[in-house]
Amino acid sequence: MDIKGFQFAAVEAAIKKPGRKDLALIYSETPAVACAVFTTNKVKAAPVLLSEERIRSGKAQALIVNSGNANACTGENGLLVAGKTTHLVAAELGISDENVQVCSTGVIGVQMPADRICAAIPALVAGLSSGTLDDIAQAIMTTDTFPKMEARSGEMNGIGYTVAGIAKGAGMIMPNMATMLSFIITDANVEATFLNDSFRRAVDASFNSITVDGDMSTNDTCLMMANGAAANPVISGATPEGVAFEVILHDVLLSLAKQIVRDGEGATKFVEIRVTGAADDADAKLAAMAIANSSLVKTAFFGQDANWGRIFAAVGYSGAKVDQSLLSLRFDDVVMAGQGVFAGGDAEAKGSEILKKQDFTVTVDLGLGHGSAKVYTSDLSHEYVSINADYRT
Amino acid sequence: MDIKGFQFAAVEAAIKKPGRKDLALIYSETPAVACAVFTTNKVKAAPVLLSEERIRSGKAQALIVNSGNANACTGENGLLVAGKTTHLVAAELGISDENVQVCSTGVIGVQMPADRICAAIPALVAGLSSGTLDDIAQAIMTTDTFPKMEARSGEMNGIGYTVAGIAKGAGMIMPNMATMLSFIITDANVEATFLNDSFRRAVDASFNSITVDGDMSTNDTCLMMANGAAANPVISGATPEGVAFEVILHDVLLSLAKQIVRDGEGATKFVEIRVTGAADDADAKLAAMAIANSSLVKTAFFGQDANWGRIFAAVGYSGAKVDQSLLSLRFDDVVMAGQGVFAGGDAEAKGSEILKKQDFTVTVDLGLGHGSAKVYTSDLSHEYVSINADYRT
Repeated sequence: MDIKGFQFAAVEAAIKKPGRKDLALIYSETPAVACAVFTTNKVKAAPVLLSEERIRSGKAQALIVNSGNANACTGENGLLVAGKTTHLVAAELGISDENVQVCSTGVIGVQMPADRICAAIPALVAGLSSGTLDDIAQAIMTTDTFPKMEARSGEMNGIGYTVAGIAKGAGMIMPNMATMLSFIITDANVEATFLNDSFRRAVDASFNSITVDGDMSTNDTCLMMANGAAANPVISGATPEGVAFEVILHDVLLSLAKQIVRDGEGATKFVEIRVTGAADDADAKLAAMAIANSSLVKTAFFGQDANWGRIFAAVGYSGAKVDQSLLSLRFDDVVMAGQGVFAGGDAEAKGSEILKKQDFTVTVDLGLGHGSAKVYTSDLSHEYVSINADYRT
Repeated sequence: MDIKGFQFAAVEAAIKKPGRKDLALIYSETPAVACAVFTTNKVKAAPVLLSEERIRSGKAQALIVNSGNANACTGENGLLVAGKTTHLVAAELGISDENVQVCSTGVIGVQMPADRICAAIPALVAGLSSGTLDDIAQAIMTTDTFPKMEARSGEMNGIGYTVAGIAKGAGMIMPNMATMLSFIITDANVEATFLNDSFRRAVDASFNSITVDGDMSTNDTCLMMANGAAANPVISGATPEGVAFEVILHDVLLSLAKQIVRDGEGATKFVEIRVTGAADDADAKLAAMAIANSSLVKTAFFGQDANWGRIFAAVGYSGAKVDQSLLSLRFDDVVMAGQGVFAGGDAEAKGSEILKKQDFTVTVDLGLGHGSAKVYTSDLSHEYVSINADYRT
């Protein structure tokens, strides 16, 4: 994978336990066109407040990110630390403070070990020539069990470009935003407004369409940087090249989002929830998310129990327009219920077989209109409880 | 406990496994003033549809209830079975069909064993003279580990009356409504409109202020019957006697609601969540419910981990108006955070001690206004997952 004009580094700054890289840097050799979406939580971490302010310029050149501490609920001091960190990075790189983004993930409410982070920055910058994007994906992991990466290549007028992304997730995965952290970089030359628009559409269909536990983080950030180092003619919207770029961007984000669900805390299942026949798309998403977030549905998935009534119950309280006599349900291709009632026959036996699979699809048709949505979720297992009961120990 | 003019019976109708009473009847010797609140789920069980229609008369004289089958997602046939059941009860008792309420709880999506239920009704009615309210509380249990009952007495002009209630809950506990089933009976003579109003206020402060897992049932019903058999002068609103009655009613419902939380599926903790300083009461309830429903907060309670940042994160996404720099938090009397940041000192050690208790209070002050709310929740344990993964087996 060759993403021109980007450099990477990760070091141990002793934020986490020894032996784990926990501080990382992505650097673009030239200022990149950039955009981002952040948590809609009203309790926002210091790095979110700072980065949100800076991204308004539409530019970014570097991103410093740490795991092990969220720098959330840390007040004025948290903001000072975030600012100081980016200032040191900017000074070492010889770039503007304003072009340095900052992200944190980890425990909430503990002040950052600012001295250790600041002390590590020179080595971090010095290591830029030797690192890879994979190093960053490793360094941002918290309860993730595997690093999450995806890359696709495209071309314009014979000039190739790459779109690559990394993510961390696992818990606190929820719509608006779903991922805790995801960074997407491309060496393509992309027109700024189109980049922003297509990025937001891709986020909606990916990170905002997954859920693990319905909780929303104080730190969620998805950042996109396009530095144009591939030197292709600029890609704009409403062109074949724009469409091709957007498809690639969408694929990269959806792949990362699915990896997050698959690595959901304690997850043993990967479930695609499709809702069709809704009054409109918004209703379809409400219904799909209610199913995807229901603890009762998710424990039934874990138990491989074809307890389909819980799915209709979740649809019923989702807020979507529902006529219970029109509801139908399939597990993969097995019809479990139609016109609101059990399909009978061997549906139970066949449905139970589907739920034994690691991956399956649940399709609910509301029978009302043409709205549809697709979301991705995991099951709720003993392991989820263990991970989150003992997170800080 | 003497609740004049009511009779009770419970039998085995073989809806559940042998050896468990699963069909019960409450009968008032005279038609009672009655009111009820039902699930707001758009997927409603057949008995909810039938009872909701009938309660509009403001009268009820009998209630038949079964456990083991919810009669939900059972279509037209489910409605026929519910109707036939109440008709047989009415015929045996010699009362009007319209005055018979019906409730069901249990698995969703399975047709009722109508023959067995109908066959059991004569014995059920015949047993009325010998049963107790406790028998009903036992018969409606599903995953409950103990029957839930409460009774209080009051008096008016020297004439004593009793307000008694039973409930079942355990899972699918959620605002609007919280309990799956609760039946409140009184021999007091109460004016109908006042009964309805005070009942709804009591439900809001009790069953609509508790949560176990955030799921909402298709069958939730809370029914109130007042038969006037105590022969007191009628109790109306805006009188000292009305206030006294409402206090008693409130106490009975709150006690039942707390019993439901305490018996939440897999619960090892009973947590009172208080939110103060909200912009208004509605905001306070939003914030309190977000905390009470957060899987991350609830697993931290289970793990006895004073991970207070997750509480602020839940407040942040609750939808309530929030200024993170004004938030403060206490576990019982221990100040964990103020002005949005950790309180420092020995707060961690002291807070962890509180979380080791079985019962404790979490108080969040939003620092904005005078809105407040109080809700009750449990923790999220391994046992919750086990119960719900294997519910039907």
